[in-house]
Amino acid sequence: MIRSVKAFAPATVANVSCGFDILGFAIDAMGDTVELIRKDEPGLRVVSIEGDGGKLPLEAKKNTCAVAIQAMLDELDEQVGMDIYLTKGLPLGSGMGSSAASAVAALEAANCLLGRPFEKKNLLPFAIEAEKVACGAAHADNVAPSLLGGFVLIRDYHPLDVIKLPVPNGLYCTLLHPHYELNTADSRSVLRDKIPMKHSTIQSGNVAGLIAGLYEGDFELISRSLRDVIAEPYRAVLLPGFYEVREALKTAGALGMGISGSGPTLFALSKGKDTAQAIASAAKEVYSSIGLGVDVYFSEINTKGAYLIEEK
Amino acid sequence: MIRSVKAFAPATVANVSCGFDILGFAIDAMGDTVELIRKDEPGLRVVSIEGDGGKLPLEAKKNTCAVAIQAMLDELDEQVGMDIYLTKGLPLGSGMGSSAASAVAALEAANCLLGRPFEKKNLLPFAIEAEKVACGAAHADNVAPSLLGGFVLIRDYHPLDVIKLPVPNGLYCTLLHPHYELNTADSRSVLRDKIPMKHSTIQSGNVAGLIAGLYEGDFELISRSLRDVIAEPYRAVLLPGFYEVREALKTAGALGMGISGSGPTLFALSKGKDTAQAIASAAKEVYSSIGLGVDVYFSEINTKGAYLIEEK
Repeated sequence: MIRSVKAFAPATVANVSCGFDILGFAIDAMGDTVELIRKDEPGLRVVSIEGDGGKLPLEAKKNTCAVAIQAMLDELDEQVGMDIYLTKGLPLGSGMGSSAASAVAALEAANCLLGRPFEKKNLLPFAIEAEKVACGAAHADNVAPSLLGGFVLIRDYHPLDVIKLPVPNGLYCTLLHPHYELNTADSRSVLRDKIPMKHSTIQSGNVAGLIAGLYEGDFELISRSLRDVIAEPYRAVLLPGFYEVREALKTAGALGMGISGSGPTLFALSKGKDTAQAIASAAKEVYSSIGLGVDVYFSEINTKGAYLIEEK
Repeated sequence: MIRSVKAFAPATVANVSCGFDILGFAIDAMGDTVELIRKDEPGLRVVSIEGDGGKLPLEAKKNTCAVAIQAMLDELDEQVGMDIYLTKGLPLGSGMGSSAASAVAALEAANCLLGRPFEKKNLLPFAIEAEKVACGAAHADNVAPSLLGGFVLIRDYHPLDVIKLPVPNGLYCTLLHPHYELNTADSRSVLRDKIPMKHSTIQSGNVAGLIAGLYEGDFELISRSLRDVIAEPYRAVLLPGFYEVREALKTAGALGMGISGSGPTLFALSKGKDTAQAIASAAKEVYSSIGLGVDVYFSEINTKGAYLIEEK
């Protein structure tokens, strides 16, 4: 019987420009790690959280790892004891799918500890339960790519319809996490309840182009399609230097860029590692010029999602 | 030197449910035919139009075939004399891309007559010029699939960005043309200028699903994605029996259905010929029960677009 497991789940970019509220992808550069140790007495206990600056709750009913595992145990109608050790690789509230990565790493680990009663994709509902607790909304656009890897389309929620999309070889992502806080509620509140029909058509055309570009491996088409007319124009005003950064990223060779989740992190897609690195350097310069620090990360798109690091 | 040519261009379904204003596809079942005969004296002359009940203009400046060819000659800066003979296989104002098929057949024929100075896809701007004259708007969602065949995405107009999408083997379309007239302006005027953000997201998710379904050859995904929340709910009220027909088509095995262009023709997609035929029969019954006649057509999706029938 497996006594202890450790699993990793990657950072994710939700929304993806024209894919507002329906698309997400995973990035190899960083993520969260969860270690589980089986206990004889039932019950979930969050023993430690590292890397959160003491901000995350240890209480099982509020902790995204424990909530996700509990949802899984409820479905199995099993009582299993586990001690949970969470190591945050992702900053909180950054728009990189921090809570999603914790929940998904916990589920990947727990599924292994229990002998894999679930196919990977069937862990998704439990992760969504955890997102409800962490974010107040049952979003899947971070948890789905963190679990499954690659680009993921959330076509519908009722019932859940998640489609894994292909990732062209050599597609890189650069993440820019500037040093300021942005309240998700603010980022949501600037959006319009109603939008012009014309904007909806533009958005549809672009997301259709992006999907086709991913299937075709057509970087030019991906580039032309990475435009968001629905959320970005309203959210950009909350993001210092947004348009300067955008310009610099384009000049550095980005296929396109956008707001990661609800920000403040920005993402840029590019063809190849050198361009991803050039984009990172260009972004640092712009943020520095407006007096903001920024953490930059870049890597290929993660295509395998969450994975087991070790089991004993 | 080629003296005379005859070309065919297929009927088309624009909008395609969730693909409102950005998608179209071509259907083999019927189309328009244009014969051109080279003349020594320059100038375009529409000699005859068959099958239009005398409704279409012979005057070259108002005739969609002549306008399209003239746009092509202007681009080439050439003066060539041609007599134009148009045979309409498509009913006018039906929502099956009637004017588009005429323009495209004319362009395919003229391009051949002139020794193919243009690649096929580069004929598109001339066809769009003709649509301006015929419909008052520079739509490409009928002319593009009629010219190129298959499913076509119009991602953008400025500049024109047209992407040909794959068609799964065995995908059939049934067209239902009920015997009543529907004014395109009425069909446009019922649409909303502003729509809820939520509807835009739903539409984006579905069109993304449809594109993925076409690439994957996943009929179930295509079926789940064929939902239009933006135009259909408003236009359906103008279409007698719409919901009864929809129900009957689903029961007969349709993957999905929708309004072809701005109606009154409806389309249904299905897997295989037998289902396409069953759909046609079911539709006839429903229309008959509400006292309306209907013409039904079905065929595979046309994947080659317009083509030459003969040259001499």
